[in-house]
Amino acid sequence: MRAGIDLGGTKIQAVVVDDDDSVQGEARLPTPTTGGPEDVANAMVEAVRSASNGAELEGVGVGSPGMIDTRKGVVTSARNLPDWEGSFPLAGVLRDALDAPVKLDNDVNVATDAEFNLGAGRPYRSILGVFWGTGVGGGIILRGRPWLGRGGAGEIGHVVVKMGGARCPCGRRGCMEAYAGRAALEARARRHVKKGEKTDLLKIMEKRGRDRLTSGVWARALEHGDKLAHTLIDEAVEALGAGVASALNVLDVEAVVIGGGLGLRLGEPYRERIEKAMMPHLFASDDPPAVHLAELGDLGGAIGATLLVRAKRPSRARVAASR
Amino acid sequence: MRAGIDLGGTKIQAVVVDDDDSVQGEARLPTPTTGGPEDVANAMVEAVRSASNGAELEGVGVGSPGMIDTRKGVVTSARNLPDWEGSFPLAGVLRDALDAPVKLDNDVNVATDAEFNLGAGRPYRSILGVFWGTGVGGGIILRGRPWLGRGGAGEIGHVVVKMGGARCPCGRRGCMEAYAGRAALEARARRHVKKGEKTDLLKIMEKRGRDRLTSGVWARALEHGDKLAHTLIDEAVEALGAGVASALNVLDVEAVVIGGGLGLRLGEPYRERIEKAMMPHLFASDDPPAVHLAELGDLGGAIGATLLVRAKRPSRARVAASR
Repeated sequence: MRAGIDLGGTKIQAVVVDDDDSVQGEARLPTPTTGGPEDVANAMVEAVRSASNGAELEGVGVGSPGMIDTRKGVVTSARNLPDWEGSFPLAGVLRDALDAPVKLDNDVNVATDAEFNLGAGRPYRSILGVFWGTGVGGGIILRGRPWLGRGGAGEIGHVVVKMGGARCPCGRRGCMEAYAGRAALEARARRHVKKGEKTDLLKIMEKRGRDRLTSGVWARALEHGDKLAHTLIDEAVEALGAGVASALNVLDVEAVVIGGGLGLRLGEPYRERIEKAMMPHLFASDDPPAVHLAELGDLGGAIGATLLVRAKRPSRARVAASR
Repeated sequence: MRAGIDLGGTKIQAVVVDDDDSVQGEARLPTPTTGGPEDVANAMVEAVRSASNGAELEGVGVGSPGMIDTRKGVVTSARNLPDWEGSFPLAGVLRDALDAPVKLDNDVNVATDAEFNLGAGRPYRSILGVFWGTGVGGGIILRGRPWLGRGGAGEIGHVVVKMGGARCPCGRRGCMEAYAGRAALEARARRHVKKGEKTDLLKIMEKRGRDRLTSGVWARALEHGDKLAHTLIDEAVEALGAGVASALNVLDVEAVVIGGGLGLRLGEPYRERIEKAMMPHLFASDDPPAVHLAELGDLGGAIGATLLVRAKRPSRARVAASR
């Protein structure tokens, strides 16, 4: 059995899989919002213990936000996690608590690897993973191998879609994420509310006991025909179309796989809308790449993390790379 | 001796190099503007004969615009060349006339390969070539090998920098090339002139006996402090900054090499300005990639074409790929 953990800003998702990558157990805990990295690590240990139910673990993989030193197992400046501006030796702490080898990687890379090896990316040798959530992350696989650049490739959320445009949470202007990321969408919605615009977004949020506009809140507001929600999500889709098309004009991969909290929650109708919004900007519009929804759904990140510790059987990526 | 031809919309540049890739002869002819592909092929033969001066040729490489079938040696829909909407078996025609094997490839790929193997890209394993000319072309080398995608990678000219923005010669809206390409710049300049704006651009053009705003015309107008030329080139630099930064946010390569007619003619001051214009949009702004001017200058395309027929000694790209 191998364990995988998807460490997110709101939840910690753990899975345990067998040699065939089949999920044999899973557990989800809220990410601690106070305390520090040690408290987050404790919750991760608890999630793995609950998912594994006492089974012996061959290894534990972690998909994490922030800057990852994969060799040292250290996570630095994970801004969405409590008091995690500095560096924390996450792999070492988890290894001591779980008595198993631990490997870390970037959450987006891990989720892209999962879709490439086990999900919607299986038929292809080159894909772009688009993770539409709090931000917009991108994962790239070329010739069967992850393309990481100097460590920062795939930052598709910060492709410029409008010079001089909206301010992005990253501080720059006109990034795709400034229009499409969940965090930016929430900031835009709250500004509209302040100006007196009517919307049910905040009411739905409160009714659900949330303190922020989750993907579920947006989905519900859209279902209810909330005008502001539709206006803002329409703008997000336009920006995603332009930004993803730009990335494709550079990369010309075989397929796009759309995941992330908002991507998965809004699902097929929005996959189709994003694909349509890409077309006017796509240079290869006569022969567009395939556009799929992520197949592994909410568990993709955690399942992808288990691939980090799959040593017995080479992953598809490794097979392809050795050809 | 090997020959290389850079087939452009205005000129045909031929070079002949020895085993050390040193240029031993060169010739430049204007590209026929009337007739058809056979007339262009005849001019190419003449240029090679003039450059080789009777030396025996091991092979001839060609960097061509249009869609290239490298296996069949056929060029299709080279829009900037006369009556070349259809397909023409360029390699076969040149082989018969020059009695040497002929290989074709895309002009941008060939020029990128030249800079990677013999020019400013030598210190790196991954580069983005930016060819700022009539359009804006991009060539990508990753892990020492060209990345072509499904055949259409590197179309950085059509990265969207402004949703709903200016109309591009390609018909789309808001592409980088719509602000930065020489063809688009000329169209913009002529529209301003029609509206009565003052500029010396057309006067300089006529004085030089040209019928279009060449890179040299733009350079001269900038030197003379022509206000419209400065306004339009400033906008071009801003668009290049945003578009190249977007491509870098996706690829995160080690270095950018700037070439093309305008890039080479405007030279170092504009290399510096483009680098500066990238910074506000670059995600890796703490650790930006190097930005160089193309070292091989005007002959880069033709020298790159000679690499297509370099069989005796593996090119750096091939060595790197086999590691």
